[in-house]
Amino acid sequence: MKKLINTAGSVVEDALNGMAAAHPSLRVRDQVVYRAEGPRPGKVGLVSGGGSGHEPLHAGFVGHGMLDAACPGEVFTSPVPDQIIDATKAVDGGAGVLHIVKNYTGDVLNFEMAAELVEGVEVASVLVDDDVAVQDSLYTAGRRGTGATLFVEKIAGALAEEGAPLAEVAAVAREVDERSRSFGIALTSCTTPHAGKPTFDLPDDQVELGIGIHGEPGRARAPMGTARELAGIAMEAVHGDLPLSGDLLVLVNGMGGTPLMELYVVFAEVASFIEGKGARVARSLVGNYVTSLDMQGFSVSVCRLDDALTRLWDAPVETPGLRWGR
Amino acid sequence: MKKLINTAGSVVEDALNGMAAAHPSLRVRDQVVYRAEGPRPGKVGLVSGGGSGHEPLHAGFVGHGMLDAACPGEVFTSPVPDQIIDATKAVDGGAGVLHIVKNYTGDVLNFEMAAELVEGVEVASVLVDDDVAVQDSLYTAGRRGTGATLFVEKIAGALAEEGAPLAEVAAVAREVDERSRSFGIALTSCTTPHAGKPTFDLPDDQVELGIGIHGEPGRARAPMGTARELAGIAMEAVHGDLPLSGDLLVLVNGMGGTPLMELYVVFAEVASFIEGKGARVARSLVGNYVTSLDMQGFSVSVCRLDDALTRLWDAPVETPGLRWGR
Repeated sequence: MKKLINTAGSVVEDALNGMAAAHPSLRVRDQVVYRAEGPRPGKVGLVSGGGSGHEPLHAGFVGHGMLDAACPGEVFTSPVPDQIIDATKAVDGGAGVLHIVKNYTGDVLNFEMAAELVEGVEVASVLVDDDVAVQDSLYTAGRRGTGATLFVEKIAGALAEEGAPLAEVAAVAREVDERSRSFGIALTSCTTPHAGKPTFDLPDDQVELGIGIHGEPGRARAPMGTARELAGIAMEAVHGDLPLSGDLLVLVNGMGGTPLMELYVVFAEVASFIEGKGARVARSLVGNYVTSLDMQGFSVSVCRLDDALTRLWDAPVETPGLRWGR
Repeated sequence: MKKLINTAGSVVEDALNGMAAAHPSLRVRDQVVYRAEGPRPGKVGLVSGGGSGHEPLHAGFVGHGMLDAACPGEVFTSPVPDQIIDATKAVDGGAGVLHIVKNYTGDVLNFEMAAELVEGVEVASVLVDDDVAVQDSLYTAGRRGTGATLFVEKIAGALAEEGAPLAEVAAVAREVDERSRSFGIALTSCTTPHAGKPTFDLPDDQVELGIGIHGEPGRARAPMGTARELAGIAMEAVHGDLPLSGDLLVLVNGMGGTPLMELYVVFAEVASFIEGKGARVARSLVGNYVTSLDMQGFSVSVCRLDDALTRLWDAPVETPGLRWGR
């Protein structure tokens, strides 16, 4: 497998240099990505992070209306506590800092350690665990955090931007997580720069149902099907866990290697499934947002909206990975 | 190769249904994608189109500040004159319509035929031919139109939005094309839904220099190199054709299957090359914009800006594929 890199060891640093060069709105220091303008006094700071290889998550979501800082680890590797401590101190505007943590054991431990060690900053944490595919897995106790992380970061980011206090920002983040579910299907493995070969083997006539964003095993292998069949499997898994009703925020997310044209084919099937259950696609996103390097496949994430959450979703956002309405 | 489709024959229709379901700002009718609000009286209408498989180009660039309509053909196949005639009539607000045509023989013929056959609408055409890799090729007499199409659509779209007359909008579109150059490198082939297997074979230790966006051959095969080496080859090709100087608009474009992390690695090298020539990255984009299905690889497009073009590039845009600042 060919990779557009200089060396496997420098890929994260090189990519962050590219982000800094491409986005004057960002500042990169000691492997942490910040808003260039720094913290705003009185605003709750939002910090997230996790292994690299899921771009634009998280560093691509730093900016007005979303994160204040992102801590990228090495590829598929948790950020270290020092990064998180640096970020937490740097973004504190006196109103405290919210850590948004995807539920992977390493991430959870390192964010907890950072929250304990950082001095003089009030820290709250919210765990994202939206993936209905598996309970306890290779990397995780409980459910994994995947696509709904984007929903949490966007909606909590909007509330923080309005000046809400830390407890409220943390509460809305938890509410979004509780209202959200995801399920992913892989058509191919990803390939990490270090390994240089696919993480797992997947025959050309099979898919992995419930894939994780690091190539962790899902629920089962199944024969390759049509977009309608695969979208149906993903949506039944979501609907079986949190019945679809009312207004929904829907993300059809590419895993990194799937053409946008195919993601729209999947979205049409997802929308049709949702209508068939009497629910409504009130807001949607289609594209590569929470990726797994070059993996082919998709995930669907659904959040049950209410008026307050819809208003926060619609609020202006200006980041490299998501922007509208400012 | 697995594809997220229902059938190869329905993939374009199914994807357009997905676009319509995902984007209330768009309306799809007879395989043409329009702004939902229809034409604005007195505004020049912008119509583009071409084969599907390059998403978000073109349909993802329909919206405020960019195109009024896009005519997607079947995968890697020109749109038919009837589509273009429908689109031209529908978007005319009385000020005429600009056709933005990538330089492929089929596209050129069908847009020309439509322009001749449409009645009662003043039509101007601009040809995009930014790819320095090859002169005359499998699909094209002259140079191919690739990444700079996005620059032309954005900048001409901004001027049209301001109410400029057709001749001025056409002139700025031509100026952007003349000031722009592109070069692409493939790490893998793409796979079309109909063929179901890679369009060409590319050994695991080689790349195709000067790849076209349909998998057409480029200048040469070369050994796989580092991101720095490959970015250097692409930039030397661009610089050799249009010496880099002054303020540049730079697109590092993914071909569809390359992780965003790797595109940022390439961008860092491109920016470094440009600085080394004494020019400046004044504006930039990094991501999948002018794709070739699931191909791995990248292209670089560069446009020499002046103040007027910079102002139009910065103007608000609100489309599924590109949005800022409204």
